[in-house]
Amino acid sequence: MKKILVTTVPFGANNCLPLELLENAGVECVINPYNKKLTEDELFELVPEYDALIAGTEKITRRIMDNAPNLKLISRVGIGLDGVDLAAAREKGISVCYTPEAPAPAVAELTIGMILSLLRSIHLANRQVHDGVWQRRFGRRISEVTIGIIGLGRIGQRVIRRLGGFGTPRILVNDVNPDMNAIPQQKLEFVSKEVIYREADVISLHLPLTHLTDNMIGKTELLSMKKDALIVNTSRGGIINEQDLHDVLTSGHLEGAAIDVFEKEPYDGVLQKVENCLLTAHMGSMSYDCRARMEIEATQEIVRFFGGDSLASPVPETEYRMQASRAAK
Amino acid sequence: MKKILVTTVPFGANNCLPLELLENAGVECVINPYNKKLTEDELFELVPEYDALIAGTEKITRRIMDNAPNLKLISRVGIGLDGVDLAAAREKGISVCYTPEAPAPAVAELTIGMILSLLRSIHLANRQVHDGVWQRRFGRRISEVTIGIIGLGRIGQRVIRRLGGFGTPRILVNDVNPDMNAIPQQKLEFVSKEVIYREADVISLHLPLTHLTDNMIGKTELLSMKKDALIVNTSRGGIINEQDLHDVLTSGHLEGAAIDVFEKEPYDGVLQKVENCLLTAHMGSMSYDCRARMEIEATQEIVRFFGGDSLASPVPETEYRMQASRAAK
Repeated sequence: MKKILVTTVPFGANNCLPLELLENAGVECVINPYNKKLTEDELFELVPEYDALIAGTEKITRRIMDNAPNLKLISRVGIGLDGVDLAAAREKGISVCYTPEAPAPAVAELTIGMILSLLRSIHLANRQVHDGVWQRRFGRRISEVTIGIIGLGRIGQRVIRRLGGFGTPRILVNDVNPDMNAIPQQKLEFVSKEVIYREADVISLHLPLTHLTDNMIGKTELLSMKKDALIVNTSRGGIINEQDLHDVLTSGHLEGAAIDVFEKEPYDGVLQKVENCLLTAHMGSMSYDCRARMEIEATQEIVRFFGGDSLASPVPETEYRMQASRAAK
Repeated sequence: MKKILVTTVPFGANNCLPLELLENAGVECVINPYNKKLTEDELFELVPEYDALIAGTEKITRRIMDNAPNLKLISRVGIGLDGVDLAAAREKGISVCYTPEAPAPAVAELTIGMILSLLRSIHLANRQVHDGVWQRRFGRRISEVTIGIIGLGRIGQRVIRRLGGFGTPRILVNDVNPDMNAIPQQKLEFVSKEVIYREADVISLHLPLTHLTDNMIGKTELLSMKKDALIVNTSRGGIINEQDLHDVLTSGHLEGAAIDVFEKEPYDGVLQKVENCLLTAHMGSMSYDCRARMEIEATQEIVRFFGGDSLASPVPETEYRMQASRAAK
């Protein structure tokens, strides 16, 4: 009987179909006993007996794979592959698949919610009114600001489509390799990242964590933004340097930030002390419908794989090449 | 020289054009010295010497007007007329005008921001992550829920248009007298308020405060809503009974509420203790652009009026009739 470790949590919590699929396939399944994102050491201890992982964003390194002689498949619940050593997986004959489409609508909506919270200080007013302070804060409307979207993939595109109902903001976009067939209807200005930093009032990141984006936004970039700029990151921690963001926000540069993703999760760090930094708990994909779709798709891959069928969403070659070029640096 | 009292605050804070217009017109202008919404007694003491008011949402009663022998014009910054005794104003020959279009886009955007905060628990996660608690909360997407809009006027229409970018939620609407020429493109279901209470996952109010809407939503209505329903009020305090909302939320019925407007402002009351009640400080119209437009339009009416021109936006007869029918009850 195949043994599967589900590292991502929660799993099967609001839709039991993934667990039923595994049971019907005659697979034995254990869910992450720590009920939080695993450290490398925790996963190292757990992994030896398993044939496949249904994985979250934790690090699945060569050392982990060395300790997992039976491991044949890593099925990622979600899209980011920064945690998985793809070269090591290939060398060891471990297949890797993911669910790239499923989380996008939920992440896009959380992003719009965060943008509106920042523009209108909803989170700050909420705290004040609960504390008995009445301050009628001014804010900005979406159609009155310039929005900069860095990363025009599945999520960036969906953010822009949702902005369409709010009138016609000026939208600056940057992408190293945009899919021109999937560009939203709205009028977009393709510019460099530096132009976005300099000219946008609201900057939102929709990027994978790669050698190109790791630590991409530090003190220099943050200080090149407008004094009242707002920055949103619902993509991956590590892209914005957290200490630099803390330092710049507390110095009074930037009006606010909204951060859903962190270098180390669960997050515990300097941004907790910054009131105008809206913080959420890596909840981008966490709508009931998207999360269910992600879990179901990742589980279906397990069933296909051990049933002898080919994977529906194997990680594409471009991802292997991108990681290889990062490793070469 | 005509003397004007500006009761609404802030005023001229982020755009000095209104103050310049008054100065150029040779009008003497005093801004509310209390820097908060005036009580009836405070306004009663202030009002005797003035020829016109640039007014907010404070109560302008017959007693106030009796104490203002020179008062000829009340120019409301905003749309709601619940504070102004229109019959008394007419009897005394005091003209009343308002700025009905200007606030609508800002109120609509705050509403969407609040809906997204509620659906994804942004405000709750923000507090938790700042406090060192990491809980990946599940949420719902707009296209997965049924939205109920009560009041399909300028603001309700704009809320629906902005929802258009989020896919196609089921939208239930109720309006006592909808302007069918101004209905948004989306497919809407016209239903009774009771159907909205019973079937909507998110209920948003876009109503004036009148005899029809005062205390419209109390315990009975709140308990007829779904157990996990969300309710948003960015229109007027008094429409939802605050004590009943507190009692129902703390009993575990309703998943959350977002309240921008209160029976008495600045707000200080029982909802402050309810964590899943998102609270803001009557900030619906408070975008820089809309607030400037409201202040400029209200000021232009003053200039027109004392320059002998007719008002651009006198309060329409329907408003007088509506208040009269309320008084008759």
